[in-house]
Amino acid sequence: VAAAAAAQGRRTVLFPLRGFADPAQYGSVDTFWLALGQLGRFVRVARQEGCRDVVLIGTVTRPRWSQLRLDFLALRMLPRVIRAFRGGDDHLLGNVAAIGAELGFNVVGAQEIAPEILMPEGSLGSFAPSARDRSDIDRALALLDALSPFDVGQAAVMADAYPIAVEAAEGTDLLLARVADLRQSGRVKVPTGVGVLVKAPKRGQDPRLDLPTIGVSTVEGVAKAGLAGIAVVARQTLVAEPQEVAAAANARGIFVTGIAPRVS
Amino acid sequence: VAAAAAAQGRRTVLFPLRGFADPAQYGSVDTFWLALGQLGRFVRVARQEGCRDVVLIGTVTRPRWSQLRLDFLALRMLPRVIRAFRGGDDHLLGNVAAIGAELGFNVVGAQEIAPEILMPEGSLGSFAPSARDRSDIDRALALLDALSPFDVGQAAVMADAYPIAVEAAEGTDLLLARVADLRQSGRVKVPTGVGVLVKAPKRGQDPRLDLPTIGVSTVEGVAKAGLAGIAVVARQTLVAEPQEVAAAANARGIFVTGIAPRVS
Repeated sequence: VAAAAAAQGRRTVLFPLRGFADPAQYGSVDTFWLALGQLGRFVRVARQEGCRDVVLIGTVTRPRWSQLRLDFLALRMLPRVIRAFRGGDDHLLGNVAAIGAELGFNVVGAQEIAPEILMPEGSLGSFAPSARDRSDIDRALALLDALSPFDVGQAAVMADAYPIAVEAAEGTDLLLARVADLRQSGRVKVPTGVGVLVKAPKRGQDPRLDLPTIGVSTVEGVAKAGLAGIAVVARQTLVAEPQEVAAAANARGIFVTGIAPRVS
Repeated sequence: VAAAAAAQGRRTVLFPLRGFADPAQYGSVDTFWLALGQLGRFVRVARQEGCRDVVLIGTVTRPRWSQLRLDFLALRMLPRVIRAFRGGDDHLLGNVAAIGAELGFNVVGAQEIAPEILMPEGSLGSFAPSARDRSDIDRALALLDALSPFDVGQAAVMADAYPIAVEAAEGTDLLLARVADLRQSGRVKVPTGVGVLVKAPKRGQDPRLDLPTIGVSTVEGVAKAGLAGIAVVARQTLVAEPQEVAAAANARGIFVTGIAPRVS
């Protein structure tokens, strides 16, 4: 996303979160590390650097209170921060966006800066879902829809109409590792090549925040789990490095498909 | 259950399933091992031994076709067996019960033979859920209810309104091990002692078959996962060895509570 912004002639300033972002992925130029809770520092530096648009990328797992470094501005926002801690991710992120807007920043989605990372409709790569896969995809989407009011369940694995795994706090990588384990231990006996990983945004989710994301590691996890492929909602899913994803999918014989969003 | 039947003066014949039942738990008297699919053998031996009531206990994970040993009677029932393999567990078990009845056996629930293994309303042991625990229990029950149409989700872990784990094919023991791992790795940061394991029967589930079950190992898994306790639906949950469960819960400071079934 930063590269896409740079290609558009925008200057980019990075604010990785200590304890959540991987230091190996950041240089020192235009990079200001924040502890979670340093809202005042963020506002001061971002204004100083001339930032107007703010893109939030990635997931913050719910922190312990002891991890927070609340500065003065964050303390002033504390009643709202406490409310943000009630309920699931949606509330937390929704509050972050509202606070950003109040402080004079324009919170935009990564896909507005880098539309090329949005999943298109149809397949990336050469493989496409079979009729059984499509039926598994429909059933998994219905399951994820049923879970949506609980701020959970952006991913599920459905194999021949049988739900093998439902994602909650563990994240998609651990979900896929579990499916691989369940197959290896014989607890799940669906043949290799049957089953689909389906990811969908939560209903009512703010598209500027926390869209489902897939990448090469997702393709590799799906291959290890012995599944047929990956289905996501087109235009509502971020694909990190789409060409690499297509190449990995082709090499593994896996489909990666974007389903048209349902109008509701 | 066999001991309870014996205490009532009933003779008990055991038909453990090869590859699913643990041989260490069975002796040689009145025990006839079956491969999955040996329906004809079961009917022949059960009639020969004078069996009238049949109790099905435990879960059969969906087998591979290659694991099946279909005998003549099973082959005759094959169209129905194939239908049983479509969809989730409910269909599979429902078909088993119907087939049993047709062959002249009375399929009864374990709780009809041994009512003392049904979870009562209120707490086993000395601990009871807090107000926050009760709110987590309500939310988890609503989540499990939403999942019910998908033949999945007999268990979930909810911590301060946040769903940490949802059970699909992995079973409750692996679910709890995952919660312990997520805590240890720091991915879940809810404090120790917050969170409840909630188990509920699927809506429309035949109570003669596959009721949710808890035992001492569930209490131990919940303790390792750092949760406050266990909530199940009273009179719709089997408790293996209730006194041992109460003692283990007291030793670990964990509540085990039976919630009154909702009338719906």
